[in-house]
Amino acid sequence: VTAAAAAANAAVVDRLTSAAPVVRGVRRAGDAIAGLDAGLVLHAGPPIQVGDLLAPMAAAIAGALVLEGRAPTIDAAHAQLRAGEVELASAHDHGAVGPVAGVITASMPVFEVVDDEHGVVAHATVNEGLGRVLRFGANDDAVLERLRWIAAVAAPALDAALASIGGIALHRLVAEALNRGDECHNRNKAATAQLVRQLAGAIVRTSPASAADVLDFVAGNDHFFLNLSMAAGKASTMAAGEEAGSSIVTAIASNGHEVGIRVAGTGGTWCTAPAPSADDGRWLDGFTADDAGPLMGDSFVTEVCGLGAFAAAAAPAIATYIGGSVGALNAAAAEMARITVAEHPRYRVPYLDFRGTPVGIDVHRVAATGIAPVVNAGFAARHAGVGQVGAGQLRLPIEPFLEAAATLGGARPGAMAAAASAP
Amino acid sequence: VTAAAAAANAAVVDRLTSAAPVVRGVRRAGDAIAGLDAGLVLHAGPPIQVGDLLAPMAAAIAGALVLEGRAPTIDAAHAQLRAGEVELASAHDHGAVGPVAGVITASMPVFEVVDDEHGVVAHATVNEGLGRVLRFGANDDAVLERLRWIAAVAAPALDAALASIGGIALHRLVAEALNRGDECHNRNKAATAQLVRQLAGAIVRTSPASAADVLDFVAGNDHFFLNLSMAAGKASTMAAGEEAGSSIVTAIASNGHEVGIRVAGTGGTWCTAPAPSADDGRWLDGFTADDAGPLMGDSFVTEVCGLGAFAAAAAPAIATYIGGSVGALNAAAAEMARITVAEHPRYRVPYLDFRGTPVGIDVHRVAATGIAPVVNAGFAARHAGVGQVGAGQLRLPIEPFLEAAATLGGARPGAMAAAASAP
Repeated sequence: VTAAAAAANAAVVDRLTSAAPVVRGVRRAGDAIAGLDAGLVLHAGPPIQVGDLLAPMAAAIAGALVLEGRAPTIDAAHAQLRAGEVELASAHDHGAVGPVAGVITASMPVFEVVDDEHGVVAHATVNEGLGRVLRFGANDDAVLERLRWIAAVAAPALDAALASIGGIALHRLVAEALNRGDECHNRNKAATAQLVRQLAGAIVRTSPASAADVLDFVAGNDHFFLNLSMAAGKASTMAAGEEAGSSIVTAIASNGHEVGIRVAGTGGTWCTAPAPSADDGRWLDGFTADDAGPLMGDSFVTEVCGLGAFAAAAAPAIATYIGGSVGALNAAAAEMARITVAEHPRYRVPYLDFRGTPVGIDVHRVAATGIAPVVNAGFAARHAGVGQVGAGQLRLPIEPFLEAAATLGGARPGAMAAAASAP
Repeated sequence: VTAAAAAANAAVVDRLTSAAPVVRGVRRAGDAIAGLDAGLVLHAGPPIQVGDLLAPMAAAIAGALVLEGRAPTIDAAHAQLRAGEVELASAHDHGAVGPVAGVITASMPVFEVVDDEHGVVAHATVNEGLGRVLRFGANDDAVLERLRWIAAVAAPALDAALASIGGIALHRLVAEALNRGDECHNRNKAATAQLVRQLAGAIVRTSPASAADVLDFVAGNDHFFLNLSMAAGKASTMAAGEEAGSSIVTAIASNGHEVGIRVAGTGGTWCTAPAPSADDGRWLDGFTADDAGPLMGDSFVTEVCGLGAFAAAAAPAIATYIGGSVGALNAAAAEMARITVAEHPRYRVPYLDFRGTPVGIDVHRVAATGIAPVVNAGFAARHAGVGQVGAGQLRLPIEPFLEAAATLGGARPGAMAAAASAP
């Protein structure tokens, strides 16, 4: 590693970890997200061709087209999609993220997360809840009705409450959630409870008529905070930005067909590999690995920021949700120190004497060690509308990291061979 | 240990740990607590003589007498107290507990916690917040005004909300709080947030006019849940009850003059020692150990139930609050396994592969090992009305445990000598 490359990496990680993302409000996506006009559908992961869409993402897009009034029925929406009449784009390219299908269209409300330190703004959808929801490809009337309620009732109430208290500093809330057993990817229980705690009085004062329903909606979903964690992560990676010569990963996301990564030194280029499927995990309600589709969603932005699987030691109780032993999950997180360049100055693990989580994934280190990052994941059904079928920890395919390292010109020949033979 | 004694201990600990305390509502103490008529003042710890009262407890009692309309001024109240005109009793003897001074009088609202498993009901005051509050001996107009507001506004709102959702199972909330970094004695942040999460919608529905103020009051106090944890603990120890031959501790409490314990096999007898003072801890706002009074309060009922210092391994972030290293706090908790007879079947520590916390303090084991229990504690100022000056972990004096062991007839001669020479 040259001194210049090390300095470039340090600069990127410094921006990534000094980001101070504050959720300021909830906006209409079409007004807030640059370039998101009525003709565009944003989705999770790197760009995808219509022919490669998995059933849940296609169904989510169809539901969004009906929601927007661009198709009269779900069937008509699918026909538009097949005919190539729907313009798709990666949410990541528009400063936005969403879990699972990650579909965002103009009328949907999005959280606005501002990092004044670096002058960036990121957006994420409002989490719909569990079960039959759009992000898992459910698109029946009840699903669209809930989305309309979120836009008409929950979003204005959350926006008014956030405005009345001057926003919530998400980096502080995440840091405290790590003290409370969350890793802020697959476990957001403590963060969601703290969010309710910080917002409850303000929601009642600003939206008395809808406050009870809105509070029940937010409080009723253990994963409500996930989208805020993701938006904070997206803002942080936007702050990290681009930097010539840097080998630090700034995005990990999957569209269900391909998982892709971006590196600060190669700008907007996605390096991709086929999206992996879960081979191990904890399955809900009698589902098995056969019911799960490949990895999908933008939520791995949390791992990019030192959360999720990288913060497992802060969240030992997640073992009951994603499977595995506490020791194995901690060991996987500790291994991530071998492929990262820093410890997060804000995101600390009490159990490890408040050491920071490993952060700043370096594709050269991945190439040199043959260690690909692990991520925590909720597994979506391969069929549309079923919802989540399980959760687990997964190791990403190493190829995108090797490709990025080779593009940067720092890969050593032996490293790729070593990686190829790693388990 | 005879087989009969072991069986007696097992029976006591089984009742202690199978208790299912549910907070059902908030009642006027005079209506809810047996024997608490207008002439009585309940206080923390074992019974105390007026002449032995520390300044903060005397001031809290004086404030309560004014609150009740039994004295026109604080000075007049102190005069009544000095003249022996005020009847005092241990809250513990009335099925109730309170933090620090633990003063309970008839007009105060108390949480009603019911364990239907064993048919017991326990009560605890509503936490007033931090700073200048009655439990620390502040008794000015603002303090009494807040107490009146709690009784008139917060208590009915909390009661109605609890009634509307059928109560909250505290043993479940505590168990989950251990997954979220609380030990439910000196750290109650996650439990308080979860309480707000569970109550917010219900408070808005049942008390729309006062909901915002009540939610701000509850959410604004990191220690709000403490009193509920204590009430759950008191219900559990009442369920444990008395059992001939059992050497299991069922109460640890301090009136600031003496710390006392009770054991299942000796019924209501208190074994006492002078209340210890903090020699180490983390001091707030420039306070030092010199500003702290001796240990005071009923909150050590949490340690009796396997929480607090006994659950330190679930709450590593508490090291920033009570001082000490995470490792040292964990080691102290692990040491408690040497003086307890069981692991709590419900209160589990994720980091220890979900092993239960040590529970069931056996005075014979204390005598045999010379290991006295440790407790977490918030340290009150020695002067009235100052508030909390610090927090820390403290080892209890061993003498009450040795006395109880000797009373039971199971102490071996060598044990006391060994204990006396222990650090």
